[in-house]
Amino acid sequence: MRGEALRVDVHTHILPEKLPDLDARYGCEGFVGLEHHCPGKARMMLGGNCFREIEANSWSPERRIEECDRDGVDVQVLSTVPVMFAYWARARHAWDLARLLNDHIAEIVRDHPRRFVGLASLPLQDPDLAIQELERSVQQLGLAGVQIGTHVNGRNLDDADLFPVLSRAAELGAAVFVHPWDMLARERMPKYWLPWLVGMPTETALAIGSVIFGGVLERLPELRIAFAHGGGSFPAILGRMEHGFRVRPDLVAVDNPRPPADYLGQFYLDSLVHDPVVLRQLIDLVTVDRIALGSDYPFPLGESPAGALIDSMADLAPQQRARMLGGTALEFLGLASAAFEES
Amino acid sequence: MRGEALRVDVHTHILPEKLPDLDARYGCEGFVGLEHHCPGKARMMLGGNCFREIEANSWSPERRIEECDRDGVDVQVLSTVPVMFAYWARARHAWDLARLLNDHIAEIVRDHPRRFVGLASLPLQDPDLAIQELERSVQQLGLAGVQIGTHVNGRNLDDADLFPVLSRAAELGAAVFVHPWDMLARERMPKYWLPWLVGMPTETALAIGSVIFGGVLERLPELRIAFAHGGGSFPAILGRMEHGFRVRPDLVAVDNPRPPADYLGQFYLDSLVHDPVVLRQLIDLVTVDRIALGSDYPFPLGESPAGALIDSMADLAPQQRARMLGGTALEFLGLASAAFEES
Repeated sequence: MRGEALRVDVHTHILPEKLPDLDARYGCEGFVGLEHHCPGKARMMLGGNCFREIEANSWSPERRIEECDRDGVDVQVLSTVPVMFAYWARARHAWDLARLLNDHIAEIVRDHPRRFVGLASLPLQDPDLAIQELERSVQQLGLAGVQIGTHVNGRNLDDADLFPVLSRAAELGAAVFVHPWDMLARERMPKYWLPWLVGMPTETALAIGSVIFGGVLERLPELRIAFAHGGGSFPAILGRMEHGFRVRPDLVAVDNPRPPADYLGQFYLDSLVHDPVVLRQLIDLVTVDRIALGSDYPFPLGESPAGALIDSMADLAPQQRARMLGGTALEFLGLASAAFEES
Repeated sequence: MRGEALRVDVHTHILPEKLPDLDARYGCEGFVGLEHHCPGKARMMLGGNCFREIEANSWSPERRIEECDRDGVDVQVLSTVPVMFAYWARARHAWDLARLLNDHIAEIVRDHPRRFVGLASLPLQDPDLAIQELERSVQQLGLAGVQIGTHVNGRNLDDADLFPVLSRAAELGAAVFVHPWDMLARERMPKYWLPWLVGMPTETALAIGSVIFGGVLERLPELRIAFAHGGGSFPAILGRMEHGFRVRPDLVAVDNPRPPADYLGQFYLDSLVHDPVVLRQLIDLVTVDRIALGSDYPFPLGESPAGALIDSMADLAPQQRARMLGGTALEFLGLASAAFEES
């Protein structure tokens, strides 16, 4: 450990090095397979096509620790790659897959308890199974919480069926990290990586709007919930949401009586915005106490090294920097820094 | 006129007081009708449902001038309500409707040349007809430019068929105002006015991304183009676009070799962001020279009185304020302030 503030990266993705043939396991196509076509590299295959080429840092804890040591990252929060959510699949298949992924992450965390924290996946298409796996992940596997998608088969996070899962997470003190996936309006985004550049931030803004307008945050004030990519488009459109709430309460304030800005400070955002002006804006909106370093490691749309943007902002006070680099993540995760210090 | 900077509102909508029965005129359903159900009020009807209730300030030039005088607005730029675009209709019907709307706006401008400037609608589903109507609108009707949607039947603004229209606008010196309409992913936004609060800003960000990544701005450096609602989500995701361009040029830089931030300053934005932090961010991004007062008058999601946000920002220098309140609009429109001064 370095003699500085603890650096905790709340947004990193990991896969098992070897995945079973899931299409065969479940008798159904559409699951990701891994093809290790040369040493240290693999292709994530989806329906016969290469979805993404990955390297050993996508699966190897040792390689990740090397890169963390190189980059000064003390702790990585591990979650699956969102394409693995499989909310579209039969619930028992997604449940089986979630258990497989969660067991894998839990094993890595057990092997390296000072370097990794884990978030579970849940079969959200079946809230009962999701709650069962949430309880197992937190109570038996010792994971700190869950990563969920911005929607479940088109149903946003205000969906009544999802509420019991979020409510149980709040009861258990499990952190909920919301990550965009299965981006909306793909037919409108055929080129230029637009589903990732425009679709993902829209998903996240839609998720924040849904938990606010749907009254989820109002009903679950204890829920610790964080949104990836600094909330996506949210900072640009909060003013529009707020104004819309005021001028058309008949349309907007139908399920919750309080305006969106009232909830600033009640949810967390990661720092992955690639823009010091936007990070400054987020600090003004939710304070450094609600912003946690997130890098999307090890993927190219992420930030490398993790924390580079926070480090680059010379006008931040040391305690502001420390809070965003690690303190906020620990609070979000419900963990104490002592857990990661040399004994 | 007041003894201050000219106040030009680049973003206002108007309809004729009386619309013919368009469904009957074109033998096809889906066009807007107006029902004047009580004095000074009307319902915009669409397929038998009330799309929006409007008041006399949606059609009466006299009423608008009264409200402008009350609010200190010198000039309104008139454009139709985007639901009138009718890009979905048969081209000859949309062409007929565009001529009807454009003739109406031109008449108001002729009657009140110091208070109104007009933007035309175009039947963009047929680029040849669109160019014909663009030429007529600018050369015969004296309109300052056009208002176009963020897409034409799902095709974004980088679509090759649209390029000749934009190219002709650049040649003619016609201003192009881009307004969100027919919002994407309606099935994901069933409540809380989300198509307006999240969908519209996404449409606009997608439009900006399309003209940048598609090389439209690169090929048409003389085009004067503006985007509504301060560019929508764009300011929050520019950093992500820029980073994506750098790390995956194979996906993003396929039609244009220059990164997005290179085009800051080459397009205009209106000021309708309902948030001083975002307006300040836009000023930092594109300077006051590219931000023009826009209010969305007379609709409730707009700003009333027009310019309230700019007026509220005490840290702006008087010349910055004046530029955004009127100077930028005049430059965008290709007009001189003398046209609006008392003779």
